[in-house]
Amino acid sequence: MPDGSGVDVAALDQDIDRANAGAIDRICHAGAWLVDLQPARDLIDIGNDEFLHAGPPLAGWQEACGPLKGAVIANLIERGRAATFEQGEEIAASGAIRLVSASTKNVAATAGGVIAAETQLFVMKDKVFGNVGFAAINEGRGHALRYGSYDIETRQKYRWMESEFATSFRESLKRLGEIDILAILRQALNMGDEGHSRQKAASAMIANTVAPYMPTRNADIFERVMRFLCANEIFFLPLTMAAGKAVMASARNIPNCSIVTAMAGNGVDWGIQIGGRDDEWFTAPVPPLKGLYFEGFTEADASPVMGDSEVAESMGLGALAIAAAPALARYMGGTVSEAYKLTERMYAICVSEHPTFKIGTLEFRGTPLGIDVRRVVKTGISPIFNSGIAHREPGIGQIGAGYGVVPFECCRAAAASLYR
Amino acid sequence: MPDGSGVDVAALDQDIDRANAGAIDRICHAGAWLVDLQPARDLIDIGNDEFLHAGPPLAGWQEACGPLKGAVIANLIERGRAATFEQGEEIAASGAIRLVSASTKNVAATAGGVIAAETQLFVMKDKVFGNVGFAAINEGRGHALRYGSYDIETRQKYRWMESEFATSFRESLKRLGEIDILAILRQALNMGDEGHSRQKAASAMIANTVAPYMPTRNADIFERVMRFLCANEIFFLPLTMAAGKAVMASARNIPNCSIVTAMAGNGVDWGIQIGGRDDEWFTAPVPPLKGLYFEGFTEADASPVMGDSEVAESMGLGALAIAAAPALARYMGGTVSEAYKLTERMYAICVSEHPTFKIGTLEFRGTPLGIDVRRVVKTGISPIFNSGIAHREPGIGQIGAGYGVVPFECCRAAAASLYR
Repeated sequence: MPDGSGVDVAALDQDIDRANAGAIDRICHAGAWLVDLQPARDLIDIGNDEFLHAGPPLAGWQEACGPLKGAVIANLIERGRAATFEQGEEIAASGAIRLVSASTKNVAATAGGVIAAETQLFVMKDKVFGNVGFAAINEGRGHALRYGSYDIETRQKYRWMESEFATSFRESLKRLGEIDILAILRQALNMGDEGHSRQKAASAMIANTVAPYMPTRNADIFERVMRFLCANEIFFLPLTMAAGKAVMASARNIPNCSIVTAMAGNGVDWGIQIGGRDDEWFTAPVPPLKGLYFEGFTEADASPVMGDSEVAESMGLGALAIAAAPALARYMGGTVSEAYKLTERMYAICVSEHPTFKIGTLEFRGTPLGIDVRRVVKTGISPIFNSGIAHREPGIGQIGAGYGVVPFECCRAAAASLYR
Repeated sequence: MPDGSGVDVAALDQDIDRANAGAIDRICHAGAWLVDLQPARDLIDIGNDEFLHAGPPLAGWQEACGPLKGAVIANLIERGRAATFEQGEEIAASGAIRLVSASTKNVAATAGGVIAAETQLFVMKDKVFGNVGFAAINEGRGHALRYGSYDIETRQKYRWMESEFATSFRESLKRLGEIDILAILRQALNMGDEGHSRQKAASAMIANTVAPYMPTRNADIFERVMRFLCANEIFFLPLTMAAGKAVMASARNIPNCSIVTAMAGNGVDWGIQIGGRDDEWFTAPVPPLKGLYFEGFTEADASPVMGDSEVAESMGLGALAIAAAPALARYMGGTVSEAYKLTERMYAICVSEHPTFKIGTLEFRGTPLGIDVRRVVKTGISPIFNSGIAHREPGIGQIGAGYGVVPFECCRAAAASLYR
């Protein structure tokens, strides 16, 4: 029945329901196979002066938060374009570099982890619908470029990771052919991971998958590569992110679809995307995080949230599956039964349950899948997301981890866009 | 107050409480470090005609169940002492070999997995109290000597495992020095393992631990070794068993101690040992298992339970910690909340809770630790244990997995022994 605006809301709602059902069907049939690891310049359209950042597009350098600044400047120093931090900052501020939202290339970036032309990217292919997602190698816990550290050890480690490590990993992958990343995620959910902030089981499994095929010609290189790989408990995170990009791309460009296909922060704004409004971001100021800070740090030290890793939540993982990860729930300051309640609330705003991502502690119920912005508006329940916390100043790095709530305004605006 | 028997029960109960408190203190302080992998003959007193079997002592070959017979005969064929199965059986029945309970050497054996003089044994050292436990390498799922398979592929795989694999593993261990096995178990409990039948997380972690130090001189050997190690989801089981032997030895030989230090089956009888009655077994006919059978098999095909792996339960793992392993609980035919109840019942018969083995789904309560046979008698609640199920005929192998209940009679007799 048409209302005064000339829009037939009931008919449109039915169209949206149909679009969403189609989107869920595609998401559930999509796959994610890790097929390669190559420099960005060989995979996507990226110039030498471009840096891909997480979240919705930034207006320019003046909007860049501390960790992002640190990472860009470290990159300029690494490439010999700047000798000091101050010089790097000057170059960046002069307009000689360009910040571009990674999402425009279906790349998932992390906090300050900018992606330059030479950055090694995992290539994640959905062989069903042909979409491809990308993400950079994870440096492990402690000081990391992606959290804004740029000291000499951090930079040396990063350089090694992008060269010696990447070469070895690529060779093992070539021998394997491909790795089914969703199969590992399914198992990891039975092993205490929620598929976003906790990646301990999935990281152990990917290490075991590639280990037999690692090049052994040089024993020293082999040992360095394997020590890094086997000790990095969040190595799998970018694989989840790239898989999220590949899988959720199957729900993009579906007219009338009200399902969230991405959520991300750029350090200033938080944004979401929905299937029916491709490339449009619905934004609001970044929300604060609830969580635990490492000793000596407080909320006042925190950088505003930045990262694309919440694409995990959009495919039914992360905070939406927190009930699967008691050890993480406790780390985030709550009890385990509170974590069950967090997941249970998310079912109210999702249109489906994941057919193969199952939560043991909820008697193997599928994870909440397909956040419908209309349901968020109707119930007033906003989606939650997990995130690491970076220090607001460049050069310090990760200072905690926690979870946040998507600003209601993002979902309200996204829903309204479908009734325009 | 003395009763008619001349025994002062109240005073004795206080002595038992004190003994148990001392035993728990020792169990909680004991450690388990994997330090070596060597042939049994270099580690323990074992003759060339001796075969160590699981559980309480058997009277002789006539008592050996199908899987045990299969494993002994396969061993005779492997060593060139028999050409055929029939010939092997003849030799074994003639009295030319001797079956010895593995527990007399602080070795943990598995189902039909007999241990001969040349069998490679993991050496698990408790550096705190100086005890050492041993167990043989696990062959992985599918056909396995330890479940009574003895076909040519099973034997070839076993021979390879005991030679090429053992040599590589030993070398990586030498470079590492030692591995803290309890530290891995603590993490595995947060990753969906219960530390006995499900060893998926712990197996992935031990592979990650040794991988960087594996010998790489021969690329083919490296690949074979790593493919076996990284695909074997129960590789860690014998490490848990040897750790159980090392740790629980600290509670042996404590006068008046009523805590169970071992439980095991020999295919005929089920037996338990308690700290206050060293080397004495309290036995009853083996109980049936509740569980799931692989397609095509039923309870009628099952061999009576045989194995020492239930030493895991005596140190607070396995069925006592089943609440930590939703995926296993479901496999065993129950719901996850039923698994919570199984663990919760076990607290009633245990004197303590493990200080570092924690169950996330029970809000990180310590696992039930220290089964007190007096409490079993008082409450009528018998301890439970997890187990694989072997076919009763030699040559077929594993046909399922499940859990059983320790015969009440074992606990009653053990408790009574302390009041004699």
